[in-house]
Amino acid sequence: MPELVGNVLVGQSGGPTSVINASVAGVITEALNHSCIEEIYGTLNGVLGILQEDLIDLAAESQQTIRALRHTPGAALGTCRYKLKKQEDYNRVLEVFKAHNIRYFFYAGGNDSQDTADKISKLAQQQGYELRVIGIPKTIDNDLPITDHCPGYGSVIKYISTTVREISCDNAAMGQHDLVQIIEVMGRSAGWIAAGSALAKRRDCPNDPPHIICLPEVAFSSEKFIENVKRVLAREKFCTVVVGEGLVDADGNYVSASDKTDAFGHAQLGGAGSYLQGLIEAQMPGTKARLVTLGMAQRAAAHCSSKADNDESFMAGQAAVRYAVEEAETDKMVTLVRGETDHYTCETGLAPLSEIANGVKPLPREWINEDGVSMSHQFVRYVQPLVQGEVAVPFENGVPVFAHLDKNRIDKQLPAYQI
Amino acid sequence: MPELVGNVLVGQSGGPTSVINASVAGVITEALNHSCIEEIYGTLNGVLGILQEDLIDLAAESQQTIRALRHTPGAALGTCRYKLKKQEDYNRVLEVFKAHNIRYFFYAGGNDSQDTADKISKLAQQQGYELRVIGIPKTIDNDLPITDHCPGYGSVIKYISTTVREISCDNAAMGQHDLVQIIEVMGRSAGWIAAGSALAKRRDCPNDPPHIICLPEVAFSSEKFIENVKRVLAREKFCTVVVGEGLVDADGNYVSASDKTDAFGHAQLGGAGSYLQGLIEAQMPGTKARLVTLGMAQRAAAHCSSKADNDESFMAGQAAVRYAVEEAETDKMVTLVRGETDHYTCETGLAPLSEIANGVKPLPREWINEDGVSMSHQFVRYVQPLVQGEVAVPFENGVPVFAHLDKNRIDKQLPAYQI
Repeated sequence: MPELVGNVLVGQSGGPTSVINASVAGVITEALNHSCIEEIYGTLNGVLGILQEDLIDLAAESQQTIRALRHTPGAALGTCRYKLKKQEDYNRVLEVFKAHNIRYFFYAGGNDSQDTADKISKLAQQQGYELRVIGIPKTIDNDLPITDHCPGYGSVIKYISTTVREISCDNAAMGQHDLVQIIEVMGRSAGWIAAGSALAKRRDCPNDPPHIICLPEVAFSSEKFIENVKRVLAREKFCTVVVGEGLVDADGNYVSASDKTDAFGHAQLGGAGSYLQGLIEAQMPGTKARLVTLGMAQRAAAHCSSKADNDESFMAGQAAVRYAVEEAETDKMVTLVRGETDHYTCETGLAPLSEIANGVKPLPREWINEDGVSMSHQFVRYVQPLVQGEVAVPFENGVPVFAHLDKNRIDKQLPAYQI
Repeated sequence: MPELVGNVLVGQSGGPTSVINASVAGVITEALNHSCIEEIYGTLNGVLGILQEDLIDLAAESQQTIRALRHTPGAALGTCRYKLKKQEDYNRVLEVFKAHNIRYFFYAGGNDSQDTADKISKLAQQQGYELRVIGIPKTIDNDLPITDHCPGYGSVIKYISTTVREISCDNAAMGQHDLVQIIEVMGRSAGWIAAGSALAKRRDCPNDPPHIICLPEVAFSSEKFIENVKRVLAREKFCTVVVGEGLVDADGNYVSASDKTDAFGHAQLGGAGSYLQGLIEAQMPGTKARLVTLGMAQRAAAHCSSKADNDESFMAGQAAVRYAVEEAETDKMVTLVRGETDHYTCETGLAPLSEIANGVKPLPREWINEDGVSMSHQFVRYVQPLVQGEVAVPFENGVPVFAHLDKNRIDKQLPAYQI
């Protein structure tokens, strides 16, 4: 294998998760093992930082800081949703890479980010600039194709299941068959996240909360929903509804309170959860509908993240470096590959960036029970290993302590670039 | 001291907290130490369970279950908001006590619950029925008078501060000076809970999130609020707002989106957080306002509760039994008494139930900074000891495991009672 000597650049893109920094820690930790890697740089705010030559020296960060990245939520390097549009943008990226002798580029993100990485990789090949590009999967949405699951997903559903179980203890204490607890979770195009709340049920207790899971995969009918709520309240002291924000009706329109305008002509706020709350209060007088909107809290909840997920995120970062350095791989994304035995194991594999960029993994319909509001045993068997174990987040003075990068800037070599 | 031989009855009342079950565990554990106590009963759903003679045998629960109560959120005995109204209700309570030889009554709750306990105690005295009644403080609202603080408060602000710190990592990653993160927390009549989010700031980092704390104690002005948000966004990448649900305007009216009706004449849902979100989107076009509504999750978050708070809740339960048995105290509530030294210590004391029932502890105005949206060092010094330490909640298969009482019913001795 010809050795490629040069520098590493790592970046983060898209919405953060509670474990995406663990992947960066994995990249840095592994990069230090390889003598062909001279410098380890980070780009601030993904491709935006590349265009603007906003690079930092990650090798200059203390070891404590890199270790603390493993349990720090958010994206420590900053992230962006910027899409490279013009050919000039791509040319600029390559200019910056050449100016800083970047020979290894690792990009953690979802579909769009892997698409960007793919295009950068292809351009480098065209121009004969030797560059190895490896994507690292990241998304709480769990919707990347080929990989068995995505780093970030296990942690978000562990936090949500924990929250559902806790709130249910509270609901049970007050419950007089008149309480509907609605918990709105993320997931605009697929129900992976809402579905994961099924883990709150104890084994062999199908009547445990959550009683109703509203998924974007199942066309929403208000009649059926109210019917389901009434059925649960007849049996249980309270009814727990978990709803994904991407709920749609039979016509494919988002079910959301914000479709309406109020008496003053202002857009009414609130998403699917708020809509369901209004529906219950309007159609079931006397019923109390309580809403929890977890929002950003769910994808940032490092204090309740999954050790399995965290370890796999770190492993994906390490693997990206090894594939690039030891196997001269490029233009691929690291995938997570589940072992075939009953005992859960997880290894890494590779898939072409272009296939990741253009694919999406839907929640299999056969994993949704016939009632449309609960999940099958196969689904539970799939997600259960992803939430195992707890991460020991250090607390100081009663609150968790997270990493703060020093962010030593690399001297700019090029003239400024207009975005 | 004359020994009073008989049975114990313990009950829970009002909104649950993540540590109110620790107080019940304290009562049970301590009661077992005293030979004058024959049986340990629990009442299901507070005074409702007494009226209906719905009593359970707590001594019959396994030791594992009682130990697990220490980290189980909600109210394991069930709770209620029922107020005894008629004289018949009070007479019935005493009848039930006599029928089951209840000589010790411990009631965990807030003002209303302590008022109920006080009236039961007074009636027993009038009728010459020897009964010792001790209240146990419980409320996330921290608004009971005399006691230095209330079990439940430390845990709710630990969870909220943790959440603010985590979400801020996420916000910082995306922040382009155009993001306002609103986090709505509980606290209808006082700002104790919202104020506690100040613990998310690192020491000597006054510009850390939360940047703006909206308290019911400070009359809300939309002009000032927008001004504050703009000031923060000019300086920081994002602006974090923590708002207590009880926000009021200069006329004392709740600031809430639900004051309005929509175009269809339906009441618009959403509270103070939803209102602020609408305000920002209307008055600061281009700004993204994101809302997290923690709702019940905050008072049920056992997995992120405070060890100090949990220990004190347990201690309050133990102390209630000791005061009643060893010192023949009655008609009082256990208080938490802070030591006078710099090193935090906490002991128990007693206060008359009637004084607790009729008092309320406001958030001292001098603890709110002049800007009206941040807290003073004295406040931080007051709350810091209350969030110290983490509770080791056992996880099984990736989710926390909580206690489930067997609830062995005590045979009813009396005819049914119409509520």
